[in-house]
Amino acid sequence: MTRVMICGDLAWAHKECEQMFAGVADVVIMDSPDRADFLKNLKPGGKYAGIVGTYRHNLSADRIGIFDQEIVDALAETGVKWIAHNGAGYDQIDVLRCKEKGIIVSNTPGAVDDATATTALYLMISALRQFSKAERNVRSGLWKAGLHSGNAHDATGRTVAILGLGGIGLRFAELAHAFPMRVVYHNRRPHAHAPAWCEYFPAERLDEMLAQADVLSVHVPLRRETEGLVGEGMIRKLRKGAVIVNTARGKVIDEAAMIRALEDGHLGAVGLDVYPDEPSVNPRLFDFPNATLLPHMGTETCDSQKKMEIRALTNLLDYLQKGKGSDIVPEML
Amino acid sequence: MTRVMICGDLAWAHKECEQMFAGVADVVIMDSPDRADFLKNLKPGGKYAGIVGTYRHNLSADRIGIFDQEIVDALAETGVKWIAHNGAGYDQIDVLRCKEKGIIVSNTPGAVDDATATTALYLMISALRQFSKAERNVRSGLWKAGLHSGNAHDATGRTVAILGLGGIGLRFAELAHAFPMRVVYHNRRPHAHAPAWCEYFPAERLDEMLAQADVLSVHVPLRRETEGLVGEGMIRKLRKGAVIVNTARGKVIDEAAMIRALEDGHLGAVGLDVYPDEPSVNPRLFDFPNATLLPHMGTETCDSQKKMEIRALTNLLDYLQKGKGSDIVPEML
Repeated sequence: MTRVMICGDLAWAHKECEQMFAGVADVVIMDSPDRADFLKNLKPGGKYAGIVGTYRHNLSADRIGIFDQEIVDALAETGVKWIAHNGAGYDQIDVLRCKEKGIIVSNTPGAVDDATATTALYLMISALRQFSKAERNVRSGLWKAGLHSGNAHDATGRTVAILGLGGIGLRFAELAHAFPMRVVYHNRRPHAHAPAWCEYFPAERLDEMLAQADVLSVHVPLRRETEGLVGEGMIRKLRKGAVIVNTARGKVIDEAAMIRALEDGHLGAVGLDVYPDEPSVNPRLFDFPNATLLPHMGTETCDSQKKMEIRALTNLLDYLQKGKGSDIVPEML
Repeated sequence: MTRVMICGDLAWAHKECEQMFAGVADVVIMDSPDRADFLKNLKPGGKYAGIVGTYRHNLSADRIGIFDQEIVDALAETGVKWIAHNGAGYDQIDVLRCKEKGIIVSNTPGAVDDATATTALYLMISALRQFSKAERNVRSGLWKAGLHSGNAHDATGRTVAILGLGGIGLRFAELAHAFPMRVVYHNRRPHAHAPAWCEYFPAERLDEMLAQADVLSVHVPLRRETEGLVGEGMIRKLRKGAVIVNTARGKVIDEAAMIRALEDGHLGAVGLDVYPDEPSVNPRLFDFPNATLLPHMGTETCDSQKKMEIRALTNLLDYLQKGKGSDIVPEML
């Protein structure tokens, strides 16, 4: 019988998963305590030997690390042809090595758009309104001490700039537009389905866009060319007092440049769900009263977790039954 | 020359205020350190004697207390005919006594709708997503410890019940509808301008509405008949795991009943901007990881503060120039 592996967190019970794949594949759960054990068991005679595909969740990295070249090579060696990643961002997988080794990688875009965009909305409101400090105030008996309405702003009527208008960025745009806010965006190319009220700024007009933004919300995936994309240059082109929201990946922002801009008051506030070196957070960020900080919760709702999990498993099942699943990541094409 | 008084917080400088009333009235600033001094100076020969109207901000209560019968009588005695209150809620003014004494009270509805509704939106997202605990986690180095996506919910597709669809409730309905959420509401009478997607539930169908609500957002003003309105009965009719958001007044909710429902898990979370005994907050609330607590910040943005202040001053000026200002509170009619 064909075999597939479940690697990392799954809300479903093993039994439910077995039922989904019944008659198509046997399901083996990755239960290795560390990388060495995992690699050993991918070898002939090991408990994962001969699998043709795997479901993957980022939480598996806690035990066996990310899917780097070493793991990808070992997976290819045993016969894996499909990695069905549960998540929108797949920077924990060396997709270029997968491509070289003939392994297809799928992710779960769309499923997380709503939950992540709602997180960006929350961070934007909190940053504009000083709500993070306000909450800490209540819990330390300080009530409104140090809070000034002069530093708090309505979202309504202000301008939000979206860096990377994909599924999540577009969903966030819709929520921001409800106030309404003016929505501007920058992509390498205009989004084919962006509504008319989303104003596009190409690379040569990026500075112009930044100069008009009260809020910059980051939604680009982490790739070599996006690492540190929001750096000193981009940050200083924002208007004084602007807010940065990041629900994408920590490394897309040059954290040192962002901290300097908080220190000298160029940035009015930040709202962050992601950090360059998660789960560790630069403690310098705790010093700023105007920083709202979440522990990478963007996609974490029961609704989106369920949607993502089913979508990832379906992609794997489709590969087994039809020879091809959906949501293949662009690097594969 | 006619004289008016500025009683409590004003962002404008005295000079700007004098300019606004130039040629119409002299402006005297209430600078009494306590109630006794204030009452003394309202008497003949005192610095406030002979004023015909006053601007009022809640912050004046820190020094002279609320506008109760004693103060209202003293204001009437010196000749006050108009109290232009800066704020939507005017429960700090004994409006029935004002009416008896021939003093008109105006407030500033509308001006705060956007800022307050945005606060309710923030509290709802935070409560549905466990973001308050998440933020405390990050700052204590706990990252995601104790957070479970099974306890976090998307707003999208869920039902929000609005208790009191006035200006703020309607604005909140618009923001919630953007997800979209299903919006239901209860008023004594249907709102004349409620959009078709706001479903009305009269008193005899209130239980039915509560049983369908994932979120109950409270927007009724504090009056004798609304004190404790959200009590044991109403809370228990909500579905298990429901969220309560309150940006209206603390006393509209029976706090003890709400705390019991948090203790036994009937309520999934609460998001509160207001408390029965502000600025003191029942420390029992700090024990619940699923409570988001703000220090009555609903209207506090530079935008709404400016709008409210100008509107209150304009109401007072209109009374002086035209014999009548706008925004007269319903009890006067």
